[in-house]
Amino acid sequence: MTYFPDTADFQKLSDHKRKMEDFSLRTALEGPGRFEKYSHSLENMVFDFSKHLITDETQDLLLSLAHSMDIEDIRDKMFAGEKINITENRAVLHTALRAPRSSSIMVDGENVIPFIYDVLDQMRSFSESVRSGHHKGYTGQSITDIVHIGIGGSDLGPRFVVDSLVDFCSGPALHFVSNVDGHDISSTLKKLSPETTLFIIASKTFATEETMLNAEVAKRWLLQSAPLGSISKHFVALSTNEEAVLRFGILKENMFPFRDWVGGRYSLWSAIGLSIALAVGFEHFRALLDGAHAMDQHFKTAPFDQNIPVLMAMIGIWYINFWGYTAHLLLPYDARLGKIAKFAQQMDMESNGKAVDRDGNIVDYATGPVIFGEPGTDSQHSFMQLVHQSPTPIPADFLIVKKPSHDLKENHNSLIANFLAQTRALAIGQTLDEAGSDISRVFTGNRPTTSIILPELTPFYLGMLIAAYEHKVFVQGVIWNLNSFDQPGVELGKKLAKPLKENIISQKIDPSLDGSTKGLLKTLIG
Amino acid sequence: MTYFPDTADFQKLSDHKRKMEDFSLRTALEGPGRFEKYSHSLENMVFDFSKHLITDETQDLLLSLAHSMDIEDIRDKMFAGEKINITENRAVLHTALRAPRSSSIMVDGENVIPFIYDVLDQMRSFSESVRSGHHKGYTGQSITDIVHIGIGGSDLGPRFVVDSLVDFCSGPALHFVSNVDGHDISSTLKKLSPETTLFIIASKTFATEETMLNAEVAKRWLLQSAPLGSISKHFVALSTNEEAVLRFGILKENMFPFRDWVGGRYSLWSAIGLSIALAVGFEHFRALLDGAHAMDQHFKTAPFDQNIPVLMAMIGIWYINFWGYTAHLLLPYDARLGKIAKFAQQMDMESNGKAVDRDGNIVDYATGPVIFGEPGTDSQHSFMQLVHQSPTPIPADFLIVKKPSHDLKENHNSLIANFLAQTRALAIGQTLDEAGSDISRVFTGNRPTTSIILPELTPFYLGMLIAAYEHKVFVQGVIWNLNSFDQPGVELGKKLAKPLKENIISQKIDPSLDGSTKGLLKTLIG
Repeated sequence: MTYFPDTADFQKLSDHKRKMEDFSLRTALEGPGRFEKYSHSLENMVFDFSKHLITDETQDLLLSLAHSMDIEDIRDKMFAGEKINITENRAVLHTALRAPRSSSIMVDGENVIPFIYDVLDQMRSFSESVRSGHHKGYTGQSITDIVHIGIGGSDLGPRFVVDSLVDFCSGPALHFVSNVDGHDISSTLKKLSPETTLFIIASKTFATEETMLNAEVAKRWLLQSAPLGSISKHFVALSTNEEAVLRFGILKENMFPFRDWVGGRYSLWSAIGLSIALAVGFEHFRALLDGAHAMDQHFKTAPFDQNIPVLMAMIGIWYINFWGYTAHLLLPYDARLGKIAKFAQQMDMESNGKAVDRDGNIVDYATGPVIFGEPGTDSQHSFMQLVHQSPTPIPADFLIVKKPSHDLKENHNSLIANFLAQTRALAIGQTLDEAGSDISRVFTGNRPTTSIILPELTPFYLGMLIAAYEHKVFVQGVIWNLNSFDQPGVELGKKLAKPLKENIISQKIDPSLDGSTKGLLKTLIG
Repeated sequence: MTYFPDTADFQKLSDHKRKMEDFSLRTALEGPGRFEKYSHSLENMVFDFSKHLITDETQDLLLSLAHSMDIEDIRDKMFAGEKINITENRAVLHTALRAPRSSSIMVDGENVIPFIYDVLDQMRSFSESVRSGHHKGYTGQSITDIVHIGIGGSDLGPRFVVDSLVDFCSGPALHFVSNVDGHDISSTLKKLSPETTLFIIASKTFATEETMLNAEVAKRWLLQSAPLGSISKHFVALSTNEEAVLRFGILKENMFPFRDWVGGRYSLWSAIGLSIALAVGFEHFRALLDGAHAMDQHFKTAPFDQNIPVLMAMIGIWYINFWGYTAHLLLPYDARLGKIAKFAQQMDMESNGKAVDRDGNIVDYATGPVIFGEPGTDSQHSFMQLVHQSPTPIPADFLIVKKPSHDLKENHNSLIANFLAQTRALAIGQTLDEAGSDISRVFTGNRPTTSIILPELTPFYLGMLIAAYEHKVFVQGVIWNLNSFDQPGVELGKKLAKPLKENIISQKIDPSLDGSTKGLLKTLIG
């Protein structure tokens, strides 16, 4: 693969960046037509890139770089089911999960679409049975509470979607347990009754330490009052490992499978999304898939200069690799989207937080950014001070929903005003003159933001939004020549935890451990 | 003030850093006595700095720099009530809020301790009255739910503390509303009954736009069913502005005052902490203050080489200004401490996210870091991939509680093992040999962490922990010669939001606005 700093485009962008150091966003925004040129609309969802440190030349160079790094080719390979996850020798097919029933996508000689739709049909039928009250617990009562037990990719997606779609939640109450810290599950179970609680155990391998420990706690809790046979009524599994699921006591018909070409952080679209369907109803889960599919089609077919995920990605590359801005802020001006940064952290940082490229070389350029964020306007009274004034700018995505689900007009007007005021303040700053000669109130401005407007917070638009970020991360991974689909860091932690756990259980500290670990261990078990 | 890059120590540290590029944490940790030398214990709470890229020389140079920047002098001025918040001409006295009743601290000729204890007595009496059920709503029922309405400093502190002390929560259920986004308050009110709900309106000025809009929504909601006079039974104020509080309809006896020398982000120790006292009981609130006071005493008196906040701060300076590591991760291995990063973001990024020093110079060095974090082990399955392997290391604080409040032994053992495994993996990495010659599994290691062990998650230890971070941020602000106590960025946003709100209400777009803002405005109000 091409080493991207060696491309002619990279060199041109480096030169161009030096010229752009004098670029004034304030001046550029005064000129006509900038919004019309740099904002894009898809299904009435607006992405405005006009508050970026870019000119036509910047965009041309960035898109030329994208072309020269073969984005189209690798994108098409992903959609076609080729094994682009090279370290694990797997296809990467979350896009297939939202493809229409009439599609055909081949993996190892099998069209995977019928399998996908079989599982979707199973999910529809089960979610309707639980939501209608037809599915009963061991004392014949309907389900009032669902505990989704998973971690990482088997947790963050459903958690974020259910949280965001609070206005669509009409089924049993959803609870999420992920942490191996026993406070997580113990505080959750305290509130629930075994007779009316359904547990969803979400683990691709059905061997994830945290999830299986918590599943065992849940099982013991149920069996304190319920007979052994009740496991089949109160536990379902989302997994690829049938043998382990059956061994746990879960019926085959209550296992919702998926395949190894679904990466954890792209799994909310698969059986892992069962909790979403249970919370909001299957038709809304389908709308979520349809929204993602609309973004897939756009990403696959739109020319780069109108391709929203490509533009998001390349603007990110511009800041990370040419300006040295290595953090990225996600600011939802909507309380319902409050967990988007937590969700995107996994999607982005686990995918592109790598230092070894696909050819086995240690990279010498910056890769994935640090993602963080909390809702506006809250964050205006918190960390936004740094975003406005710190020596190193932090590019940000501002998100807002045009039509709220409440009728508090004045609150919404104030929300919009603050949303606009922040991006405007970041862009234009405040001169010494405007600050009344008080230098502590001078803001340099020139701090770049993308504004994203969702017409309404529906499953469809949420699906579009998530898929846009997925493809953004994908494009950046291609530019950096990374395998965005593995996670060796997770494995290393597991490998080192195992012997330490044995030390803790046996209360015997391995003398060959490092001094700090020995000291801490002694404190913790002493 | 001294420009710190001009100090001899800065130059020595720059030279020393070049030598330290060959430092191997793996090798250093194999040597004897490192844990004993670099870990510190206070009230049985352990802070282990031995997994840092430091030697005795590093520590000596960093502490020498601290001395040469007059940390002791400015620290003593802060404790003594001098007006070190120079842009606002105010004292900075959150430490006085946790001082013993017998202390004497003078501000403008007044000993502030009697005032502080009057308010504490008022808080004790009111919280006991509500918690015992003696305080009644307008239909004669006791209070079951409390809605704390505030934002930024009037929200994040109480929210974090109440969340963390979940095991001590024995009073009415606490709900927090902060965002001006109407979904925040509307979804909260949906669950409540006006007859049994108490609203706490927390705003220093009683003019914060978000808080006052939400307070008005709450008032209208109450008055839909309750008579006008019931406001006095269902609303209390935490504020410095008596006139505005009375105008709202709140009785003077239900107003809990504080003074202008309490900064928002240090206000949980003041009347703003009333919600904490209501949730956990006054005696536990007192223990929280006592814990913070214990850390204050330590910070005031311990020599720098044993001074925990000073060491935390100077190690941070080492990475930020000499290694160029500008992000900082907070990783609580305890679900109850899950919001610590959100809380610390304000404390740190609002304090030191500045680019103008106390003498009015634009700084040319890095200042406050980007703070982020989510609980471990969750984050191991999310962004930790990047923390292990990204080209730029991210220093981290790992926190764990020795004694859990549940009895799930296996979960806790696994939690400890993972906690230790992560810091060990970050420190020692994995060589190509250890990775079975798979380069994608090579970890450079040398990634620095502090480990913090709380004996138990009690109010006292939580108070110590928060105060340690407050003083860390203070010390860093002094090194960078910043005023850590103002927040001009918040003001700029407010100033620009006002005319935009008028545009929205009148549906008339000011033609002199920038093109992007006009385009977005048209989309949002169209």
